[in-house]
Amino acid sequence: MRATLIYGAGDVRVEDVPDPVLREPTDALVRVLRSCICGSDLWPYGSRPASEQGARIGHEFLGVVEEVGAQVSGLRPGDVVVAPFVWADNTCDFCREGLQTSCRHGGQWGAPGVDGGQGEAVRVPQAQGTLVKLPASVAGEDAALLPSLLALSDVFPTGHHCAVTAGVGPRTTVTVIGDGAVGLSAVLAARRLGAEQIILMGRHKDRTDLGREFGATDVVAERGDEGVERVRELTGGDGTHTVLECVGLEQAIVTAFGVVRDGGTVSRVGAPQYPAVPMGFGEFLRNITLTGGVAPARAYIEDLLPDVLEGRVEPGRVFDRTIGLDQVPDGYRAMADRQAIKVLIRP
Amino acid sequence: MRATLIYGAGDVRVEDVPDPVLREPTDALVRVLRSCICGSDLWPYGSRPASEQGARIGHEFLGVVEEVGAQVSGLRPGDVVVAPFVWADNTCDFCREGLQTSCRHGGQWGAPGVDGGQGEAVRVPQAQGTLVKLPASVAGEDAALLPSLLALSDVFPTGHHCAVTAGVGPRTTVTVIGDGAVGLSAVLAARRLGAEQIILMGRHKDRTDLGREFGATDVVAERGDEGVERVRELTGGDGTHTVLECVGLEQAIVTAFGVVRDGGTVSRVGAPQYPAVPMGFGEFLRNITLTGGVAPARAYIEDLLPDVLEGRVEPGRVFDRTIGLDQVPDGYRAMADRQAIKVLIRP
Repeated sequence: MRATLIYGAGDVRVEDVPDPVLREPTDALVRVLRSCICGSDLWPYGSRPASEQGARIGHEFLGVVEEVGAQVSGLRPGDVVVAPFVWADNTCDFCREGLQTSCRHGGQWGAPGVDGGQGEAVRVPQAQGTLVKLPASVAGEDAALLPSLLALSDVFPTGHHCAVTAGVGPRTTVTVIGDGAVGLSAVLAARRLGAEQIILMGRHKDRTDLGREFGATDVVAERGDEGVERVRELTGGDGTHTVLECVGLEQAIVTAFGVVRDGGTVSRVGAPQYPAVPMGFGEFLRNITLTGGVAPARAYIEDLLPDVLEGRVEPGRVFDRTIGLDQVPDGYRAMADRQAIKVLIRP
Repeated sequence: MRATLIYGAGDVRVEDVPDPVLREPTDALVRVLRSCICGSDLWPYGSRPASEQGARIGHEFLGVVEEVGAQVSGLRPGDVVVAPFVWADNTCDFCREGLQTSCRHGGQWGAPGVDGGQGEAVRVPQAQGTLVKLPASVAGEDAALLPSLLALSDVFPTGHHCAVTAGVGPRTTVTVIGDGAVGLSAVLAARRLGAEQIILMGRHKDRTDLGREFGATDVVAERGDEGVERVRELTGGDGTHTVLECVGLEQAIVTAFGVVRDGGTVSRVGAPQYPAVPMGFGEFLRNITLTGGVAPARAYIEDLLPDVLEGRVEPGRVFDRTIGLDQVPDGYRAMADRQAIKVLIRP
């Protein structure tokens, strides 16, 4: 089959690889219907050391079950399924607590010996715990739902995790930092959780326009101190109860502490590109909390699924370009150059 | 009257100062029955630049109302009251949310123009909001309760705040870092909130012995990596759900991240002596939360008071030395030299 490998910064290739086969009785094989490129794929795309050995990449996909191992129940060939961006048994103590990203028997897509999502097919470890079944109709007459269902793999639960861990609700004001796909998803999640004031910090008009459609009530294009000042003006000088940090750069986390209200919470889902967080005596005196982390998407998919199936939320609107598998290198370039928000792949 | 002033590191003096008088109609005058020295007083005692101008110090006291301003209701001369370590109107939006440390009209004891607690009397700004009335009997036949009631001023609510913000409850395991008065109070608070496994990290046997009486189930005397290893051994390799960081030094916060379980919460109430917190990609992948901050003691006093009055908790046991006002400089030395856990002052 064809699959995507990364050989180093700027070097992504689509190549022939061996067809996946069942290895463990807990495995399933899934033929990929839709996959996509993640903002977090851009970190290795930007900085991974060059290697002669490529590594599989991609961790978001949705597809059709082709074969299941002897210990997999509840799934059979022909089922349409979505995979969260970390695989997990969904039965260990961490999974039962909703922290499938720390599963005792789970792991990452693209790890050595594990397929990536940006290919024609995937061997899914811990398939019974990992995969979530979707209505069969989405492979046919309801195919228009596929982008939003694919968003359940990572980007929408990530925005949702950010909002949930921050404690967003009807009585909380919200600042979302970052107008990428995760930031826009965080806006959508905050609105869905009932927030009434959602300030989106971002400077790409096409993105912030979608943010407004998703529920942002204010857009702040300024960055740094000027951006902090603007958010404070919009909140009577106080800042917002919650801040959803969806970037991962140091400047973003510094801004987050600048715009959060005393006693408030900053939640971060942008993978940190910094070693330490500037939370010293000032943040201590203001009782600021920092929470968030890598989103246990699996914990949220069933909760979010009905709203997607019934069209109440359309997280798939973050996909603004669709490509075939062979165009994946172009897709990476388009996202890295900010020409696309998020790129959908039809293998 | 006599009051304590700090002139610089190691230089604390008890001197004659003007008697306090009412300045605002919201003030009250309180004659101090008991005061004490705080671990946080040791930071300026350790490092404050020398000055010819002394500054009032002390922020924990309990006393008898002598006079109230025209706008103070609910308090009258003769009332016995305890003061939280930050004064506040207790009516603004932050106060109503339980964050009196961010009160819009509040402030610190010992700030310019404001008395400190380590003196014979105190002018209390925002007296109606700040002071909490105690039963009159504690000034007479129930005087044995005074140390524990004084502990409501700061040290016990601080330990309680640490436990509450960390989410301690019957199903959470707890590590407390630090065997000072705050750490011991955090043990007591965690036990009161129902925690069953409480690991106290500290290496002063007299202190950890009191920690065991307060509810610690395990004591780890090792520090650094070795200490982390020991806590992990005691928790099946996982660490504890909550970590109560009651020191404020960088080594303590590093240890906190080492002993916290994935998905867990570190709460800090030790005033940070570091500018940044080492929460990078590793803590992100593990979904670690950092919370806590300066404790809004006022928010908790009424909740904690019945347990103190009825003897169900005895937070005043952290006081292991009692001195008169003129011995305050000795009291600072004793605490700085770790010869006393916490020093009580009878002016």
